[in-house]
Amino acid sequence: MKRISKKLLMALVTVGFGLSATGSAWSAESLDDVMKRRGLSQKDVLSAAKTYVPTGKRDEFLAFSSGGQSGQLIVYGVPSMRILKYVAVFTPEPWQGYGFDDESKAVLAQGRVNGKDILFGDTHHPAISETNGVYDGQYLFINDKNNPRLAVVDLSDFETKQIVVNPIMKSEHGGAFVTPNTEYVIEAAQYPAPFANEYVPLSQFNEKYRGAVTYWKFDRKEGRIVPSESFSVELPPYSQDLSDFGKGPSDGWSFTNSFCSERYVGGIEKGRPPFEAGCSQKDTDFFHMVNWRKAAELVKAGKAKKINGHDVIMMDTAVKEGILFLIPEPKSPHGMDVSPDGKLMIVSGKLDSHTYVYSFEKMMALIKAKDFAGKDPYGIPILDLKKSLHTQVQVGLGPLHTQYDSKPCVAYTSIYVDSQVTKWDYCEGKVLDKLSIHYNIGHLMTMEGDSVTPQGKYLVSLNKLAIDRFNPVGPLHPQNHQLIDISGDKMELLYDMPLPLGEPHYAVAIKADKLKPKIRYKSGWNSRTDKRHKFRTRPGKERIERDGNKVRVFMTTIRSHFTPEIIEVNEGDEVTIHVTNLERAEDETHGFAISGTNANLSLEPGKTASATIKADTPGVFPYYCTEFCSALHLEMQGYLLVQPKGYQKTSVKGTEGTIYKKADYDKQFKTNLSTQGVIDTVVGYITARNYQDFKPVVALVEDATEQLGFAANTRKKAEGFAAKKDWHNATLWAGQWWQYQVKAADIGLRAKTYLDQHGAKVIKK
Amino acid sequence: MKRISKKLLMALVTVGFGLSATGSAWSAESLDDVMKRRGLSQKDVLSAAKTYVPTGKRDEFLAFSSGGQSGQLIVYGVPSMRILKYVAVFTPEPWQGYGFDDESKAVLAQGRVNGKDILFGDTHHPAISETNGVYDGQYLFINDKNNPRLAVVDLSDFETKQIVVNPIMKSEHGGAFVTPNTEYVIEAAQYPAPFANEYVPLSQFNEKYRGAVTYWKFDRKEGRIVPSESFSVELPPYSQDLSDFGKGPSDGWSFTNSFCSERYVGGIEKGRPPFEAGCSQKDTDFFHMVNWRKAAELVKAGKAKKINGHDVIMMDTAVKEGILFLIPEPKSPHGMDVSPDGKLMIVSGKLDSHTYVYSFEKMMALIKAKDFAGKDPYGIPILDLKKSLHTQVQVGLGPLHTQYDSKPCVAYTSIYVDSQVTKWDYCEGKVLDKLSIHYNIGHLMTMEGDSVTPQGKYLVSLNKLAIDRFNPVGPLHPQNHQLIDISGDKMELLYDMPLPLGEPHYAVAIKADKLKPKIRYKSGWNSRTDKRHKFRTRPGKERIERDGNKVRVFMTTIRSHFTPEIIEVNEGDEVTIHVTNLERAEDETHGFAISGTNANLSLEPGKTASATIKADTPGVFPYYCTEFCSALHLEMQGYLLVQPKGYQKTSVKGTEGTIYKKADYDKQFKTNLSTQGVIDTVVGYITARNYQDFKPVVALVEDATEQLGFAANTRKKAEGFAAKKDWHNATLWAGQWWQYQVKAADIGLRAKTYLDQHGAKVIKK
Repeated sequence: MKRISKKLLMALVTVGFGLSATGSAWSAESLDDVMKRRGLSQKDVLSAAKTYVPTGKRDEFLAFSSGGQSGQLIVYGVPSMRILKYVAVFTPEPWQGYGFDDESKAVLAQGRVNGKDILFGDTHHPAISETNGVYDGQYLFINDKNNPRLAVVDLSDFETKQIVVNPIMKSEHGGAFVTPNTEYVIEAAQYPAPFANEYVPLSQFNEKYRGAVTYWKFDRKEGRIVPSESFSVELPPYSQDLSDFGKGPSDGWSFTNSFCSERYVGGIEKGRPPFEAGCSQKDTDFFHMVNWRKAAELVKAGKAKKINGHDVIMMDTAVKEGILFLIPEPKSPHGMDVSPDGKLMIVSGKLDSHTYVYSFEKMMALIKAKDFAGKDPYGIPILDLKKSLHTQVQVGLGPLHTQYDSKPCVAYTSIYVDSQVTKWDYCEGKVLDKLSIHYNIGHLMTMEGDSVTPQGKYLVSLNKLAIDRFNPVGPLHPQNHQLIDISGDKMELLYDMPLPLGEPHYAVAIKADKLKPKIRYKSGWNSRTDKRHKFRTRPGKERIERDGNKVRVFMTTIRSHFTPEIIEVNEGDEVTIHVTNLERAEDETHGFAISGTNANLSLEPGKTASATIKADTPGVFPYYCTEFCSALHLEMQGYLLVQPKGYQKTSVKGTEGTIYKKADYDKQFKTNLSTQGVIDTVVGYITARNYQDFKPVVALVEDATEQLGFAANTRKKAEGFAAKKDWHNATLWAGQWWQYQVKAADIGLRAKTYLDQHGAKVIKK
Repeated sequence: MKRISKKLLMALVTVGFGLSATGSAWSAESLDDVMKRRGLSQKDVLSAAKTYVPTGKRDEFLAFSSGGQSGQLIVYGVPSMRILKYVAVFTPEPWQGYGFDDESKAVLAQGRVNGKDILFGDTHHPAISETNGVYDGQYLFINDKNNPRLAVVDLSDFETKQIVVNPIMKSEHGGAFVTPNTEYVIEAAQYPAPFANEYVPLSQFNEKYRGAVTYWKFDRKEGRIVPSESFSVELPPYSQDLSDFGKGPSDGWSFTNSFCSERYVGGIEKGRPPFEAGCSQKDTDFFHMVNWRKAAELVKAGKAKKINGHDVIMMDTAVKEGILFLIPEPKSPHGMDVSPDGKLMIVSGKLDSHTYVYSFEKMMALIKAKDFAGKDPYGIPILDLKKSLHTQVQVGLGPLHTQYDSKPCVAYTSIYVDSQVTKWDYCEGKVLDKLSIHYNIGHLMTMEGDSVTPQGKYLVSLNKLAIDRFNPVGPLHPQNHQLIDISGDKMELLYDMPLPLGEPHYAVAIKADKLKPKIRYKSGWNSRTDKRHKFRTRPGKERIERDGNKVRVFMTTIRSHFTPEIIEVNEGDEVTIHVTNLERAEDETHGFAISGTNANLSLEPGKTASATIKADTPGVFPYYCTEFCSALHLEMQGYLLVQPKGYQKTSVKGTEGTIYKKADYDKQFKTNLSTQGVIDTVVGYITARNYQDFKPVVALVEDATEQLGFAANTRKKAEGFAAKKDWHNATLWAGQWWQYQVKAADIGLRAKTYLDQHGAKVIKK
């Protein structure tokens, strides 16, 4: 031991204090050399400089992108375009323990359809909660097109808290979008179907299949949707599509696109033309306007019908009460975007080459004057297209979706077929610029570009095909998000970002400094219910309780051991292990996985998470920490043992692997004292400087102090055993004392490096 | 129609040919302006220039990183550090259809443990297949620490083809590593356990718990592991850890670390010191040497014992036959890295401050001379540490893992506690340079750095903590991979890359041009068995077959419809839908998802994939394409209808949503003729140029030609109905004809843009 520990000390001293590991001379290669070697143009270097974020620096915006069929939410930084997190929403994700711990399984269970676990989603449109039409960064809502469902993600910890299943739809698309104060989240249907969960032949499509929009009530204080206070409005079997809420003058209204207002039912197998032909035959589809505020009052007044236990305002009521209108819109639209001032609604049809700018003022005047162009087959009044339009602009082939700049009247529209972004003036109705993208752009996103305060600066083009943009990785390609600089008159392409998992549809971006996520949970926290966990465990209170064949383990975890380390149960037991992470330090997550089971927990500091397993196979099942949490991470282990039914305990006593004696204890004790001397030097170095001016260092010092507290307690144990001349246990506990010292030294050295690199100064006391 | 289509044509002409969307003036901001605005140093700009990859350009290397508890494999480019793909391995992943289609479910089913689906993994160490010790880029192997399992990924399509479950271990860590010609893949145990699947009390730890190394035989022609030709060697209950195969002079041997050679069993809940204390008490652990080539011969000679149906060479046989030796190594090691020339083995212990360089020549000489320092408690000969060493170098506190440079004798070692990388000379035994990383590095990776031909240039530091490096995203942080320039004398940090999903442990990087992945599959391909799919469907052969209550649907998909579009079944049926993607074009993946079910397919060009569902709920279930595959993607839909038991068909005939007349047909026909004129102009533009010199354009032209063929066929249908004066169907088919034209135009415009941007020239015919 002596030889090693002496070297360790030398290392601490010479590496930690002697050699400077930073500030080495920069390599000789110049920028010109690099440009030549890598074939970069001056424009490339400028783009690189506009997007590169140096180590430790932050991105200006955070983008939240849907993950498409991955069923997840993607978080990345702008302008660096580095993905920071996939947030598990509809699909189990073991890194986050999502769908593997009991707490998150309960969230996924809320999303059951007809009693079945649906373990994926098709996320399309994320929406950030708003206050007075401004992104407030508190919550995020995202939809599942396939099932159809809506999820609530809490941006204080980036976790999914709730899933609600639409009670009347079988498919949706036009959500999530929020009212300016997030009272409601909208979800519009996609493919029409009967509201009841029953079979209706397609021959009854016009008569019994329906579309709808659902307004989910959001309780901001609780951070949860309230299904009992939510309602829907019945709509014709036009395939409803994207939606948006009014704001400013149009606040109180919502707007929803549609396609296939032909109400065509395909059947290519029967010789009928396919859906795509019949659903794109007419020149125009219908833009739905709903007065949601009045609709909410109608529900309160008892004018809704209960369908599947849910309040639905039927079309005849909606028409009679004057809350539902239609306006023609360019065919097969894929964007419904209310201008920041709430006065205009921009719609593009994928099979038209124009954006249509509707005037809310004109629409209201027509409604007020009852100046209708006609009624649809379901009796809904139709406003005249021309009379409703502010302007109409030819932007290119296959326009889809529009986002707004911070500059007045400036908008950007994605042009699918032309593979371009068109920048245009929606007040004057003229095209300002065009930029080629690669390839086939779907949605696009500007910074806070669908709020009342767009931030300008950057635009991200969410492309549907990557084809040759990246190194090939097999027949299934990544997607391509392209970052575009919109600060100047001309748009400039800055960066191609591959999306490695799922096909994003829409994304939203918020100023990063609006988000203040947690670093840790209150100790013993159930992060999915946002309450103290019923089965949390405080240090020293770890235990195993049995009630019949139900076994409950109250476990804690801290660098680097579980308590308990051995769990013995009987075949047939149902075992629930509740693990509380006692750590307080930032990023000190522990994992917990048991061999041969699907038990797999992610335990961020403070969290309590649980795994329930059926002990139906006798045997030996190691468990361990799946996060590399300290130098002793591999040793953070334990065993679950399942005794077979009728097992007879033997009295065979095993041998101890290694027996330690007084000399071992003395050697370890001496090592520890020397190590403490080094730690004291580090502590002295830190406390002699203005470390309290550096928040990260204060956190490290707190963490190191805690580790040294553990070390002191363990020292007492070791000395206790030594006093009883139990040298074996004395040596082992002295070893544990040293482990805590090593952890403290690790943290101390990180703190020292931080101070060195951030110009800390020596203070006088 | 006229108004819209005229505009469409204008758009095609003016947008496609008139306005140039590229080559716009670059914004006025200079590099100095950008540096000032963004606070970048000259070094930052240099780093940006060294890592930025402009649009359409490729990365030089591809890195394959384990995904930790995500259970997946991560693929990213170096130096851009952009993630290109998460490859699904042990965890279901809906974007790839993995675990949602029948074919991949069969792969996951191979990974069942005790008959149970285990739907996550803890991937640690990927290995690329080698030929003569050089990465050949054909296959990749990756392990699951928790269960323990090994998977085979085919780098021709980046799909997981096989999972094997270790027959005797309950936990592993030291895999995957391959022999120089990939005959075997090694997997070493981690936490000791009984080989049999039975309960053995921990009091029998020394007597009945065991470690092992397994040598999985790989059949390169089949691309699959052959379990019946694989074998293991029994080892003591030391926790085996990382491994490596010999090469050159050491070819035929394998080397495996261990920790907790104290054989300590914790039990903190019973007052015993925790595992971490007892497992780190001794100064040294054991480095295992196994002569695997001779071991394979012993198995052939019948000297192995069958345990759980698997050949195991027991320790007494291994000792007797002289194939197993031990050497002391620094305590709690976490790296075993054979030098490129195969002469030296480098080991670092996390609780020592040195790397130990072992000489294979010296080890062999000791074995030959039977010069042993003793035996371990299991009778295995121990070589003397000092006599086996080439050198020993003090590199820093908590060294873990070593990788090699292309420069002779230069290696890099990760230093966990100091949070540094140390560059050193392993021939001369001296430290050359140190670089701080952020924070607590685990493994590191140089380009092809564990092959016989390391490529130098870059090093990636796989850090365990990110803490303050990125914008905060909640208590669970991303990981941080840092890219380091190692081309000069001094290491230079270039880039911080967040890892958004899972904790990578080890990664390997290969020159990108060695990989030649497929763009498409042969039509009707089962990508998981690599054979033509038994239930593939050719165009025109789509059908629904019933056999009792089993229904089999033979479906095809092409832009943008499914055939069939309507599937009617009865409650209680078991419905299997086999979907063949008829597309040939690169990146033309379709998806297929059915509402209310877990059916979710990813259909890359040529693939056949299947979903089996139990139709146990009567009702209406829309299905659709989850990939935005064309402008008509939203219209790519269909319905699965489940009739309830005893349903009586009604004779109620529904109404058609919209009826078309002769005028509609004439209008559509005229539109199509004009559209064809525009397409002809695009075709003329392309064919007048040397487009055949541009491979991507040739592919686009093929694709467009196919679409125009569909258009021509559909035109015939329309004209057939028109001849019969069935104007309704004639109009719809004319609409479909136009849809194919739009798809052809989309592709044609992409081809034209490509030619414009790549300097195509007019050719004379």
